[in-house]
Amino acid sequence: MVLVSSKILNSTRVWLINKHLSMYLRKLSSSTLRAPVPRKVRIVEVGPRDGLQNEKVIVPTLVKIEFINKLTRAGLKTVECTSFVSPKWVPQMADHVEVFKGITKVPDVSYPVLVPNLKGFEAAVSAGVEEIAIFGAASESFSKKNINCSISESIAHFGAVTQAAKEKGIKIRGYISCVVGCPYEGMVQPDVVAKLTRTLLDMGCYEVSLGDTIGVGTPGSIQAMLEAVLAAQVPVGNLAVHCHDTYGQALANIFAALLMGVSVVDSAVAGLGGCPYARGASGNVATEDLVYMLSGMGIETGVDLNLLLEAAEYICTKIHQPTNSRVGRALGRLTIERK
Amino acid sequence: MVLVSSKILNSTRVWLINKHLSMYLRKLSSSTLRAPVPRKVRIVEVGPRDGLQNEKVIVPTLVKIEFINKLTRAGLKTVECTSFVSPKWVPQMADHVEVFKGITKVPDVSYPVLVPNLKGFEAAVSAGVEEIAIFGAASESFSKKNINCSISESIAHFGAVTQAAKEKGIKIRGYISCVVGCPYEGMVQPDVVAKLTRTLLDMGCYEVSLGDTIGVGTPGSIQAMLEAVLAAQVPVGNLAVHCHDTYGQALANIFAALLMGVSVVDSAVAGLGGCPYARGASGNVATEDLVYMLSGMGIETGVDLNLLLEAAEYICTKIHQPTNSRVGRALGRLTIERK
Repeated sequence: MVLVSSKILNSTRVWLINKHLSMYLRKLSSSTLRAPVPRKVRIVEVGPRDGLQNEKVIVPTLVKIEFINKLTRAGLKTVECTSFVSPKWVPQMADHVEVFKGITKVPDVSYPVLVPNLKGFEAAVSAGVEEIAIFGAASESFSKKNINCSISESIAHFGAVTQAAKEKGIKIRGYISCVVGCPYEGMVQPDVVAKLTRTLLDMGCYEVSLGDTIGVGTPGSIQAMLEAVLAAQVPVGNLAVHCHDTYGQALANIFAALLMGVSVVDSAVAGLGGCPYARGASGNVATEDLVYMLSGMGIETGVDLNLLLEAAEYICTKIHQPTNSRVGRALGRLTIERK
Repeated sequence: MVLVSSKILNSTRVWLINKHLSMYLRKLSSSTLRAPVPRKVRIVEVGPRDGLQNEKVIVPTLVKIEFINKLTRAGLKTVECTSFVSPKWVPQMADHVEVFKGITKVPDVSYPVLVPNLKGFEAAVSAGVEEIAIFGAASESFSKKNINCSISESIAHFGAVTQAAKEKGIKIRGYISCVVGCPYEGMVQPDVVAKLTRTLLDMGCYEVSLGDTIGVGTPGSIQAMLEAVLAAQVPVGNLAVHCHDTYGQALANIFAALLMGVSVVDSAVAGLGGCPYARGASGNVATEDLVYMLSGMGIETGVDLNLLLEAAEYICTKIHQPTNSRVGRALGRLTIERK
């Protein structure tokens, strides 16, 4: 304990990244996890949308396209790639058509896009989108302040979208934000989340992603929320969790959700969507950190961590931001040094 | 989802820290955690020793003393306060006698000190120390490179110390480093950890702290390691976990350990012991993040998070380092702004 030096830490990284990382993870994977968790997890990569939309500097379209291609090459099967929202609202997503059309579509990979309304939906369909995502909040105050209508009004707005999507055979994913805490109301009642989840599924969503979008949750509040949702006759197979890491709780919260049978997890490579060094870092959990944890638990994701680290390094270099991933920080820079 | 702004994140922090933090945590605490975990956790604060020893700039003795006093005022019941090691090895700990004698001893609080040998032990006893900590590694290569002897030799060296401690009624805590991974060997066999734990308990340790000192563990490898230790007839009540957060896994790993009945957790306020912004950040899990998680799980720690944040701010200001705690980053700076 007393003599651990930075030299040894360097050795750790050298050892991990240069020679043994894959082997190490395979070995760890053979460990038996005592708690019952799913054997496979599908990761929904939200970096290109939920991550980049928070970047102030506009990312060139070709960079976004290459970024998404790198993510699918790493083995991710669902990559939320853009938002068909008005450029006035989110200038970063103004190139949604070009991005969607430009990416190399990999068979068996879904490329959902966020749509805020029917206009966005129609533009998405014209671009060839096959899966959309719609969203609501579990807090009345947040809904009012964020999109200027009540929860039920916001969901009603999506009625025309979901109806049109069903007619066209477009898959619909639902997001609920503020599932355990709200910046205005404080604690959010699990029953509100349960009711809204039920509503979104009834409207045609094949999956609802439960978002602790301000990162205040803990395994206690996440499990209490999930219990209420499951008690509302929602099959666990229709649920995903979406945990921001503002309070450092994201991986523990995801572990708590896995223990309850959830097997779909949203994340963003490099923890995009928050500034790691500014106060109130609010990014998504980093996909690298998630893959590292799941691999170590013997849970299959189909994702190659080395290729994922490359995708993270690519986007971090392009947006001139340090990574917000702990795994990336521990291993990533070395890759740059080796060049 | 689409319109979350930094304004809202500011509101979150204002709301949390200024008005509702305690209430919020109390409410969360009333959540029922589905998984069976201990109702109480004893936190062993290692910031003043394991944390500060990695600081290059020598921290003034009076600052160390005030830091420790602030930690006990926050409600921590075990604060490892210094190391009776040769100043040649660890210059930062050269003032061990002055620190130990200078702190305000609070009844029912333990102030263990690390001792590397009989000479350190005798100096500690002369200073009035009532609890010591000894240490070994679960990796032969690490032991050889770190302290130039095999695991069994390193433990044998402590025989005279533990014998003397028992004769004097001094409590002995044991540390094992590299319990799941070693910078030289890679994966560490759980059986080696189990055997060493058994040995340390047999030598008189009342508790053995199992340290993932390079932070490579996941819930999978941590649980596999703990299973082997428990299978070696080690009562779970004699175990603690000590998780570094290098790969961001610490809280999830601690949660995994709680699920197996472990109820003593080491941590360092502000995540001291690693640089948050340099590659290979190797610090301990931050006590603030741990307390936040445990509170949210309804687990008692006796620690006041606000006073803990004050202690963190104090030491970070004195050593001119940003905090490595996510909770501290999300909430802490505001405290400075309010002044």
